[in-house]
Amino acid sequence: MSELNKKLTSTLEINVRFSETDAMGVVWHGNYLKYFEDGREHFGREYGMPYLTVAGHGFFIPIVHTSLDFKASVYYGQKIKVVTEYVPVRTAKIVFNYKVINLTTDELAAEGTTTQVFISQETRQLELLIPPFYQAWKDTYFNK
Amino acid sequence: MSELNKKLTSTLEINVRFSETDAMGVVWHGNYLKYFEDGREHFGREYGMPYLTVAGHGFFIPIVHTSLDFKASVYYGQKIKVVTEYVPVRTAKIVFNYKVINLTTDELAAEGTTTQVFISQETRQLELLIPPFYQAWKDTYFNK
Amino acid sequence: MSELNKKLTSTLEINVRFSETDAMGVVWHGNYLKYFEDGREHFGREYGMPYLTVAGHGFFIPIVHTSLDFKASVYYGQKIKVVTEYVPVRTAKIVFNYKVINLTTDELAAEGTTTQVFISQETRQLELLIPPFYQAWKDTYFNK
Amino acid sequence: MSELNKKLTSTLEINVRFSETDAMGVVWHGNYLKYFEDGREHFGREYGMPYLTVAGHGFFIPIVHTSLDFKASVYYGQKIKVVTEYVPVRTAKIVFNYKVINLTTDELAAEGTTTQVFISQETRQLELLIPPFYQAWKDTYFNK
Repeated sequence: MSELNKKLTSTLEINVRFSETDAMGVVWHGNYLKYFEDGREHFGREYGMPYLTVAGHGFFIPIVHTSLDFKASVYYGQKIKVVTEYVPVRTAKIVFNYKVINLTTDELAAEGTTTQVFISQETRQLELLIPPFYQAWKDTYFNK
Repeated sequence: MSELNKKLTSTLEINVRFSETDAMGVVWHGNYLKYFEDGREHFGREYGMPYLTVAGHGFFIPIVHTSLDFKASVYYGQKIKVVTEYVPVRTAKIVFNYKVINLTTDELAAEGTTTQVFISQETRQLELLIPPFYQAWKDTYFNK
Repeated sequence: MSELNKKLTSTLEINVRFSETDAMGVVWHGNYLKYFEDGREHFGREYGMPYLTVAGHGFFIPIVHTSLDFKASVYYGQKIKVVTEYVPVRTAKIVFNYKVINLTTDELAAEGTTTQVFISQETRQLELLIPPFYQAWKDTYFNK
Repeated sequence: MSELNKKLTSTLEINVRFSETDAMGVVWHGNYLKYFEDGREHFGREYGMPYLTVAGHGFFIPIVHTSLDFKASVYYGQKIKVVTEYVPVRTAKIVFNYKVINLTTDELAAEGTTTQVFISQETRQLELLIPPFYQAWKDTYFNK
């Protein structure tokens, strides 16, 4: 199966926190980046690639790009789910797409994407080659 | 002068909060949306278009799109400035571009954009026409 | 059974978010108030007294007092549980005690308390008498 | 002058952020701990005891206790000031009291206190004696 066709996704349900709402009565837009992070980490736990593993191999994986589109407000007391989809790329990057669904209304609340790179914990330099531990992880899901 | 060539910008200095850093020792990426918001509101105060004015005219102006590119980490104890640039558009939208500069290192830390729309506070519906109060504000800066 | 002896408690497990850590590598102290809120709302759902019910009866229940003691740090990647205990009082207040346990180390990470009062949504005035809907809720658990 | 009578205070004005409000339209209670932190750091800069100095001497100074009383709501668009008062104590602790004043209404919005201790960055153990660098700082303000 081609790397570009296979999809790995993970779904996480989240109760919206009161502290995440703003004076318009809805979730403040910046908090969706927390939901994306929740989704990404849930994906990591589900597919055996948690953040801590990355740190254990000597890398940080900071986000270098993100974009978000907001489609419908989420009110306090509503429940959401984050669907996190792994997007395979051939370079030393980790890309995810996200959809936040309002489970109370069944509406798409927001969607977006993040790109992460590998930074050496020791040198704080960008790693241009795919680290072996990460290639090994990819190989378990995307056969050559 | 053409609307597309004139630039309105506003600059705000911010001390990075300890609570805004994460376990990598740098500002957590999602907090840049707070800096963008700070910059946007500072722009509004400087150019006479504060959020409260918008609410007073019966509108919310939620963010419907944002994107961010992260260029260099900002560490706790460093000071930043946000340069907010108003991007004139001909539709019923408000667009800003942002640059976050690390004043300690003189590096560009991040840049991004936001798009806001007008939503009626009463009906919660999208306003497709430019509200008169906003057109009046634009006319003071961008002569026809 | 006497009101003062009976204990209602609720337990919620939480994955610590990366965004909740700070540059010391541990959960930023202010975020424990989010965990308390999570615990309080979980208690509400478990015992049939959610925030939304309160709002539906015309009241806000803002926090007027809180105190927290921090006993041991919680690191990113660790899991916690919040034990929320309802503290019956005879006045128009809602009091909870909280314990945050680090499930990875079995240590007590923090403990604290919150006091909430009833504010009329209409008048924004403090309600000195116990609202009937809340007394009814209490009566189902604490028989006279 | 006796150590117990002299008062060191520092005042910082803050614009309330939209992201700091909640669905009740007011500043979410947990965000006052950010204002306390802002006040504390401002105090540090004003009196020559910044966080970074502490880290440079090999210590973390985590908060081990805090308590807050909320007196009046602060709405979005209002401006506040934090008055931070250093409370001299004879043990290896740092204690501050805080008052948050709503500058728009002249009301006391909240008051509270924090206690910090010295933790060795190397051993992560509590330091029971006052570190010399901190005693030296105290001596410049509180003559024996």
